[in-house]
Amino acid sequence: MKLHTVAELLSSDITLQDIEIKGWVRTFRANRFIALNDGSTINNIQCVVDFENTDEATLKRITTGAAIHIKGELVESQGKGQSVEIQVKTIDILGDSHPDEYPIQPKKHSFEFLRENAHLRTRTSTFSAVMRLRSSLSFAIHKYFNENGFYYMHTPIITGSDAEGAGEMFRVSALDAKNPPLTEDGKVNYKEDFFGKETNLTVSGQLEAETYAMSLGKVYTFGPTFRAENSNTSRHLAEFWMIEPEVAFMDLAGNMDLAEDFMKSVLSYVLEHNMDDLKFLENRLLDEEKTKPQAERSEMSLIEKLKFVVDNNFKRVSYTEAIDILRNSKPNKKKKFNYIIEEWGADLQSEHERYLVEKHFKCPVILFDYPANIKAFYMRLNEDGKTVRAMDILFPGIGEIVGGSQREERLDVLKEKMKALDIEEEELWWYLDLRKYGTAVHSGFGLGFERLVMFATGMGNIRDVIPYPRTPQNAEF
Amino acid sequence: MKLHTVAELLSSDITLQDIEIKGWVRTFRANRFIALNDGSTINNIQCVVDFENTDEATLKRITTGAAIHIKGELVESQGKGQSVEIQVKTIDILGDSHPDEYPIQPKKHSFEFLRENAHLRTRTSTFSAVMRLRSSLSFAIHKYFNENGFYYMHTPIITGSDAEGAGEMFRVSALDAKNPPLTEDGKVNYKEDFFGKETNLTVSGQLEAETYAMSLGKVYTFGPTFRAENSNTSRHLAEFWMIEPEVAFMDLAGNMDLAEDFMKSVLSYVLEHNMDDLKFLENRLLDEEKTKPQAERSEMSLIEKLKFVVDNNFKRVSYTEAIDILRNSKPNKKKKFNYIIEEWGADLQSEHERYLVEKHFKCPVILFDYPANIKAFYMRLNEDGKTVRAMDILFPGIGEIVGGSQREERLDVLKEKMKALDIEEEELWWYLDLRKYGTAVHSGFGLGFERLVMFATGMGNIRDVIPYPRTPQNAEF
Repeated sequence: MKLHTVAELLSSDITLQDIEIKGWVRTFRANRFIALNDGSTINNIQCVVDFENTDEATLKRITTGAAIHIKGELVESQGKGQSVEIQVKTIDILGDSHPDEYPIQPKKHSFEFLRENAHLRTRTSTFSAVMRLRSSLSFAIHKYFNENGFYYMHTPIITGSDAEGAGEMFRVSALDAKNPPLTEDGKVNYKEDFFGKETNLTVSGQLEAETYAMSLGKVYTFGPTFRAENSNTSRHLAEFWMIEPEVAFMDLAGNMDLAEDFMKSVLSYVLEHNMDDLKFLENRLLDEEKTKPQAERSEMSLIEKLKFVVDNNFKRVSYTEAIDILRNSKPNKKKKFNYIIEEWGADLQSEHERYLVEKHFKCPVILFDYPANIKAFYMRLNEDGKTVRAMDILFPGIGEIVGGSQREERLDVLKEKMKALDIEEEELWWYLDLRKYGTAVHSGFGLGFERLVMFATGMGNIRDVIPYPRTPQNAEF
Repeated sequence: MKLHTVAELLSSDITLQDIEIKGWVRTFRANRFIALNDGSTINNIQCVVDFENTDEATLKRITTGAAIHIKGELVESQGKGQSVEIQVKTIDILGDSHPDEYPIQPKKHSFEFLRENAHLRTRTSTFSAVMRLRSSLSFAIHKYFNENGFYYMHTPIITGSDAEGAGEMFRVSALDAKNPPLTEDGKVNYKEDFFGKETNLTVSGQLEAETYAMSLGKVYTFGPTFRAENSNTSRHLAEFWMIEPEVAFMDLAGNMDLAEDFMKSVLSYVLEHNMDDLKFLENRLLDEEKTKPQAERSEMSLIEKLKFVVDNNFKRVSYTEAIDILRNSKPNKKKKFNYIIEEWGADLQSEHERYLVEKHFKCPVILFDYPANIKAFYMRLNEDGKTVRAMDILFPGIGEIVGGSQREERLDVLKEKMKALDIEEEELWWYLDLRKYGTAVHSGFGLGFERLVMFATGMGNIRDVIPYPRTPQNAEF
C-alpha cells in the first residue's frame, strides 16, 4: 500500500477505501479525534479512532508529538472544519512523546522559547509555514533566473581577498589557535596556514560574479555570506543567504527593471503556491496586531501587502529628490527623526527610508544616483563626478531589501577610486583584468534572502526566518 | 531595439531586418568574419563585416576578447557550418582587448594555465560548457525535489558542533589571531569569541536536516561544506557543494529508490536541455582520449555514458556479496590491487569500487549493509548486530558519488553508539531529542555536487568543475 500525504488526502475529492499514512500527532481530543500532521501542508487531517475497540495502552500513547502509523478509510467528514477525515482501522505508535517532557505543548509558545528549541520549532504551525515559504521563495528565485537565461554560479565561501569592503569578516584558519607560527617580524605566519595566506568568510560574491557575467552574460549567485559585526538586532545575522544577479551589457535602468520584475515574480509565485501558509501567517499577524494600539497596526494585511507589491509599479526617485522630500517633511522639521536631514550627501537611515516608503509614497521605492562617497568603490561614477549609478529598493516594514549598481567599467576611473581608498591593485588584479580585456557596461544587485522571507511571512525577527540563526554569542545546533 | 542573444538568433528560422547584439569576439578572420559569443550558448554567431566600408582603425580593434556592439540583419548564411549569419551594418567597440596582452588566445590552453586565469577561463568553449552544465544540474536538482514534495533547507555553515565526524574542520574566529585571550588554565578562551564558543565550518548539514525531516517530512540541503584535509588530488576540494535529502518514514530500500530516481532525473534533464554543451565536451574527451593507449580509452562516449545511467537499473549488491566477488577476482588473486581483500570487514578502496562498477557489473552499483565499524555512528544497526543500513552509489570513472543510510532511530542504541565513540550527549542533545519525541524510521543521503558535475561533463579534475577551487595552498580570487 502506498503511503499517502496529508496534503494529498485533504485535496482528494473521492473517498478512498484503503489508505495508509504516517505523521505526528498535533492534538488528541475526546479520546477519539487525532489531528495528524506530516509536514506536507499546514493543515492537519482528522483521524477518528474507534476508541471502544482500541486498547487502553495504545490510546494513552496517542500524545502530542508522537509519531504514528494509521491505516484506514478516507470518508466525508461528519464534523465541521474539514471535508474529509480518516476512519481509523489500525493504529501503530512508531515513536512516543512523553506528554510531561515534550517541549512543544499544544499551546502558544513564545518565539524566544522556540528559538531555544529551534530543532523542534518547525513542529508548530507558524514555523512550518515560515520554512515552507522559505523553500518556495528559494525555488521561485531559481525558476525565475532559469527561465530568464541566467546561469547559477557558486562563488567561493572562503576568500583570500579582503577587498570586498562590505563589512567585518570572520577569519578561517587551520593553524594552532593558541600558538600560531610567527614570521621573523612577529606577525602570524599565514604562509603556514592551509591556504598559504590569510583567509576569511566571504561578505559578497559580487566581484566573482562579475567575472562570470563578463563571459556567460547573465549569472546569479545564491549562497551564504557573513558579517562579523556585533549587531544584536532583529534585522541582522552573522550568517545569511544572499542572491546576487550580475548582467553584462545592462545599465542602471535595466538593473532597476530586472530587480522589480524579479521581486514581483517571486512574490507572485508564493501567492500562487503557498496560499494556505500565507493565510495562516496573515491571521497570526492580525492576532498579534490586536495587542497593539490602532496607530501602530498595518494598514494592509499580509496577503494584501504582497499583492500590492506585485500589482503596483515601484516608484523610482533619485537620491537628490528624496533628500528634498525628506528635508521638507514634517518629522524632519519637527525634529522627530533621530538623524535630521540637513544637506545633500547625508546617508539615509532606516527611519528615512521607512518615511519615504510608508508615509510619503506608500509603495515600494527605488532610490538611485547616490552620492559617490557613501557608496562602494566599484559603482559607476556619473558624468556629474559626484554621484554613482547605485540603486536601493525600499519595502514597507522592511526598509532596504535590495542594493545594486551599475559597475565602473572604465579601467582608469576604477584604478583612481581604488587608489583613493587604499585598495591595492595586486589584491584585485583579476577584477581589473575584466576592465582590460573586453570591458563593457554591466550591472547587478544583491538581495538579502532573509529580508525577503521576513517580508513574505510577516515575521518581525530575522532569527525566526532561518533554520539555525547565527548571531553574537549564539551558534547553537 | 531589443538586444538579442546569440542563442535566440541561431535558433531563429526567419531572417530579421533589424537586429542588435552585444558580445565578445572569439575570432576574427580574413578581416571579414567575426565569431561572436555572448555566453548564451556554446555556439558563436558569424558576423560578416563589410570591411571595404569600415574604417581601418575599427577593424584593427576587432580582436579576440574585445566586447563589441553590432547592428545588422540576420540572413541565411552563404558559408558552411551555420544556417544564419549577421550582415553587419554598424559596429561599435565597447571594450578593447590588446592582442599581445590578452591571456586567452584563440588556441588550446592547458587546464593548468586556465586555472591560474580562472577569472577568464569561462571565455573558452570548454569552461563555458562546464559551467552552463553545472548551472543546469543545479536547477535540475531543485526542480526534482520541488516536484517531489521536498522542502529546501539552509543548514548552518558556521557550526558550534564538532560531532559531525566527517573530517577535519576549519576554525572560524574573530579573536585576535596572534594573541587570543586565554582562560586561567591557559587555553584559548572562546567565550570571548564572536559566538561565545569554538566554531568551525560545517562538514555536513545532515544532522540539522534530520531535525527538519522529523517535522516537515521531506527536506533537502544544497550548500557548501568543508574539509581541512591536506588532500592534493584531482578528486578533493577543501570547499565543495553537497546535496543532502532527508526523509521521514523512509527506510534504506526507499533511500536507494530515491537516490536512483534522483540521479536518473537530473542526468535526463541535462540530456534534454544541454545537448550542445554535451556534444562539445564529448568531442573534447574523444580528442583527449586519442592520445591515450587503446586499453585506457573509455568504452562509451560521454553522452552514451549518461544515457546508460539513465536507461539502466543500478545493480544493488550487499557489502558481503561484494567482498566475495572481490576476494575471488583476478586482480585480487594476482595481487594487482594495492589493498588485497582478505576478509569481511575490509574498507573498500577506490580501486575495488572501480573494479566492481567498471569490470564486474559494468553499470552503476549500489552497495549496502556495510560493517558497522567502518561507518558513522548515526547509521541504523541491523538485527545481525554487525552491519548498518548504509548504502553507497558507485559510478563508472568516478567511484563513490552518493553515500547514505537509514538513521538510527532508537534512543538507547544511538546513545550506546555515541558512548563507544566518546561523543558527548550534551554535544548532541538536540539530535537525541529527535529520538525522544516522536521518533520514526528515516533516511537520507549525501551527493558531492562536484563529483556529479565531473561525471556529467567528463572533466577529469575536480578543480575544473567549480568556479574558484579551494585546495591546499590555494585560495586565489
